[in-house]
Amino acid sequence: MTFLTHFSVQPLSSMTRRLAGVASGRADPDLVIAGARVLSTYSERVLPGREIWLWGGRIAAVKPAGTYKGGTARIYDARGGIVAPGLVDPHIHIESSMVTACAYAEAALLNGTTTLFCDSHEIGNVMDVAGIEAMLEDARLAPLSIFLTVPSTVPATSPLLETAGGDLTAEKVGALFDKWPEAVALGEKMDFVPVAMGDERSHAILAAALKRGRPVSGHVYGREFVSAYAASGVTDTHEAIDREIADDMLEAGIWLFLRGGPPTTPWHSLPAAIKTITELGASHKRVAVCTDDRDADDLMLFGLDWVTREAMKAGMTPEQAWAMGSLHRATRFGMEGEIGGLGGGRRADLVLLDDGFDPVSTWYGGELVVDDGKITPLLDQALSTRYRYPDAAYHTVKLPKQIKLTPDLPTGKVVAHTIRTELPGITLGHQKITLDPANGWQNHFDRHGLCFVTVVERHGKSDGNVAYGLLSNFTLRRGAVASSVGHDSHNIIIAGLNEADMQVALRAIEETQGGVCVVVDGKVTAMVELPIAGLLSDKRVTEVAEEVKILKREWEAAGCCIPYMGFNLIPLSVIPEIRITDKGLVLVPEMEIVPAFEAA
Amino acid sequence: MTFLTHFSVQPLSSMTRRLAGVASGRADPDLVIAGARVLSTYSERVLPGREIWLWGGRIAAVKPAGTYKGGTARIYDARGGIVAPGLVDPHIHIESSMVTACAYAEAALLNGTTTLFCDSHEIGNVMDVAGIEAMLEDARLAPLSIFLTVPSTVPATSPLLETAGGDLTAEKVGALFDKWPEAVALGEKMDFVPVAMGDERSHAILAAALKRGRPVSGHVYGREFVSAYAASGVTDTHEAIDREIADDMLEAGIWLFLRGGPPTTPWHSLPAAIKTITELGASHKRVAVCTDDRDADDLMLFGLDWVTREAMKAGMTPEQAWAMGSLHRATRFGMEGEIGGLGGGRRADLVLLDDGFDPVSTWYGGELVVDDGKITPLLDQALSTRYRYPDAAYHTVKLPKQIKLTPDLPTGKVVAHTIRTELPGITLGHQKITLDPANGWQNHFDRHGLCFVTVVERHGKSDGNVAYGLLSNFTLRRGAVASSVGHDSHNIIIAGLNEADMQVALRAIEETQGGVCVVVDGKVTAMVELPIAGLLSDKRVTEVAEEVKILKREWEAAGCCIPYMGFNLIPLSVIPEIRITDKGLVLVPEMEIVPAFEAA
Repeated sequence: MTFLTHFSVQPLSSMTRRLAGVASGRADPDLVIAGARVLSTYSERVLPGREIWLWGGRIAAVKPAGTYKGGTARIYDARGGIVAPGLVDPHIHIESSMVTACAYAEAALLNGTTTLFCDSHEIGNVMDVAGIEAMLEDARLAPLSIFLTVPSTVPATSPLLETAGGDLTAEKVGALFDKWPEAVALGEKMDFVPVAMGDERSHAILAAALKRGRPVSGHVYGREFVSAYAASGVTDTHEAIDREIADDMLEAGIWLFLRGGPPTTPWHSLPAAIKTITELGASHKRVAVCTDDRDADDLMLFGLDWVTREAMKAGMTPEQAWAMGSLHRATRFGMEGEIGGLGGGRRADLVLLDDGFDPVSTWYGGELVVDDGKITPLLDQALSTRYRYPDAAYHTVKLPKQIKLTPDLPTGKVVAHTIRTELPGITLGHQKITLDPANGWQNHFDRHGLCFVTVVERHGKSDGNVAYGLLSNFTLRRGAVASSVGHDSHNIIIAGLNEADMQVALRAIEETQGGVCVVVDGKVTAMVELPIAGLLSDKRVTEVAEEVKILKREWEAAGCCIPYMGFNLIPLSVIPEIRITDKGLVLVPEMEIVPAFEAA
Repeated sequence: MTFLTHFSVQPLSSMTRRLAGVASGRADPDLVIAGARVLSTYSERVLPGREIWLWGGRIAAVKPAGTYKGGTARIYDARGGIVAPGLVDPHIHIESSMVTACAYAEAALLNGTTTLFCDSHEIGNVMDVAGIEAMLEDARLAPLSIFLTVPSTVPATSPLLETAGGDLTAEKVGALFDKWPEAVALGEKMDFVPVAMGDERSHAILAAALKRGRPVSGHVYGREFVSAYAASGVTDTHEAIDREIADDMLEAGIWLFLRGGPPTTPWHSLPAAIKTITELGASHKRVAVCTDDRDADDLMLFGLDWVTREAMKAGMTPEQAWAMGSLHRATRFGMEGEIGGLGGGRRADLVLLDDGFDPVSTWYGGELVVDDGKITPLLDQALSTRYRYPDAAYHTVKLPKQIKLTPDLPTGKVVAHTIRTELPGITLGHQKITLDPANGWQNHFDRHGLCFVTVVERHGKSDGNVAYGLLSNFTLRRGAVASSVGHDSHNIIIAGLNEADMQVALRAIEETQGGVCVVVDGKVTAMVELPIAGLLSDKRVTEVAEEVKILKREWEAAGCCIPYMGFNLIPLSVIPEIRITDKGLVLVPEMEIVPAFEAA
């Protein structure tokens, strides 16, 4: 049996003669999906009474039902179900699912997603080009079509504001484009303030993409930045958080990727942003949907198929929504001749839907990989052959022997610059709290609803840089929580109520070379081990999903007011208003460091 | 003053820092178009109260009216008019206008067209790669953005069925892609029967484009061929002649370019084909409009702006129609970051419209080239510096000294396979007429409504191949008409009532090395001289338009039932049902030669 990857289907250029023969009826297809309705992402209609002729992993033709009169082709009876093109996720960070690309494929195919565009800037922040290239090798072995939007903003800000493992210069970005055909665009250019201000390094990276004719993905907050951002060559974004900025972006020539996510997380901006269409009357033709970040657990329940159905709930017709989930991104990157619709010559990446637009079966490159909601033996076999990351990827948490994790108690009256956490959790508030002298930290915590937050540099670039701060309203009731996934530099972030539990959390992560954990009374009560770059498990997605379920349960029991994925964003110093990195507290968009405490 | 060409505007990659500065208000634009409404091809709305800030020939930002507070920028008052992106013609043969690319630019800009995709297969049929490259050099000097869809079907059929000057193999096509960045796609693959049948040469040419990631344009008649055509990698077509085939094509994943043209010519298929949208409910997002062929005279009156307004008349909103005229083709080729809308960073190719969507003024790369319906001195200067075609292009009509232009009178009863002409004139009927013995041809002509049609090989590849046939219903009343534009091999086609007038027409064309003429009683009464490749004038478009007007008057006076552009298609042996080439009468789609006369 052929090993199933993106490369199992031959290029169209070598297949046109045979496909023309099949479409003309002179040669047999090898598979006919019979008795189907077809969801056309081209015309945005559902066409009744169709059958789909496949050969060599591509679509030869869609014909009226009953046209195939029998021969050597296998027949799959769709029993009147809806056949649609596989979904295309236009913007995703695989690392957020804490699994490898190979492992991610399993969840994607179960959700009807057959192509994705990943921005591997997490592993790039830890391991620089070596990490990105390892993940590309991983992706090449996956039973899924995975393209790269080259990480553009590593580090997310500058060495003055944080210490990252990676440093992706314009030269390195250009070299990635030149070496890897999978590198189809520049990934989200997150440093929107420097971009708008004309920063030289930022624009050199933009130029590395634009000079090569590659489009640029963006990430911007604030309507006042949109026009400068578009003028800098950014032509898509997934960060529209409301109707007005979504509308501004569309008009500035920026494709919108509406991000949907579990309603309890900060990722569900789709319902607000889609109102540019449903309330302001904009065309949906330059709008797609995406997931962006999904942990292993949520991935099984809130995949791109779910986001697509959310678009239907928000007022799009099912046909429009499915086009937003597949064809539109393919179009945006000039790949609609390969994917995104059921046209002749396209890859046979298909999904069979029930009447609620829930995926039932999935074909990848003409091979049945999910049948009636379950993975097939073929896919199971493909998933058992996995990429092994290089040894260096398993050794990325480098800490000094001794680190103090909590600040000294102020002796006088001070103003603390605290980070206020609250749902949905993406933006964080800058809350100044006056602390009168007290006997211990616990008095402050009790009075003001605070806890410690500490970031420790882990790339071995400093002798254990450590920065202290306070979280307000995080509502942690006991122990500590910690993570080696601390966007985007992925230093270790720890929140806690006491030094001892925070030390246990830090050393647990050092021991496993990465992970997210909850500690209570000196004991680790939940831990997702992430030994690859401190970001990824090397288990299958279903196993990781189980581990994440337990983590979430303990996380919630510890009282944290935002989920662990929001917690991981606390060091991400490109989102307002205040964040903490290993260099200290950073104000955004001012991009200034402020001390944790100032004399009152 | 800078010489105005496509290259006058610098690449975006070198301009992003400054454009971001202008959009942010830190630097001055160099032009502000104030007091405008903006037609957004992105959202398909007209936005009131806007101003457009330009710098360096690109759009820095669209801002609310009144944002610019004064500075060094020039101000252009749009007086409340509608500013829209310049039109993009997705499929055109410049040669049909009988002018050079430089000359064509004048008419295009007057029509609000700022970019076009030309398929120079006419000059390719005459001069092979040398002709295509000469026209590319011509295009590089034009004040217009001209891209090439590489001629794919030269000769249109095969050396068995016609003698062409060019022979574009897959290797030559590949070399054109590799040498010329303007070569963005494969031009219309017209030999749809061989394509569907899996012909080796045809598919090697398709592969030359697909292997390089270049899309393929098509040309197909007959619903039964659509699926094989799509399976062969064809992803656009401009030949949808009715609602049903248009619908089939859309569903097969083929972009539709709806062709509009003067209602009296065969080019106006838009009103029928657009019904896939207006009656069958298909989305218009993969639909554009195009002109395909336009003579110099019609070009001034029936440009792409006219076609766009025809789409409005046929039921599209003005915003949808303008998007079909600009953005959609840019999107189809992944060029929407450069053209097709008023997004940041785009080329400032703009048109100011009145409330009837008639172009009033045009900016090309930020320069005002048409103002209030008249070309500006800047454009006039640009048009005065013209490309000179190589000498070989002026010597392409090679004829033997003696050629007999009419067939011998049959002595017995015969069946004549005649070509029946009638409006609209693209397809031609195969009419078998029994001829009883007669005293002279005139008797047959009078009785059956016939005249001679003769094709003479002119590339010097044979010793004057000549083929005879009869036209029925052509209604020529006197003399002869002739043309060195005889699609696609561009041998000389002559229709006439007698040998003498036909000889005068032939030798007149030889004398000028190309042209279209009308002869009455031994005298040339009208002649458009086409000395470049026998296809192009070397005059300005306004002069050629005047010559064409006279030609049309005389053509009509001669009684011809189809216009001269339809006449030029009579040798085009890829359109049903019967055509005539220098090798004889060709049946389409059978692709067989039949004798002109068979014993009854």
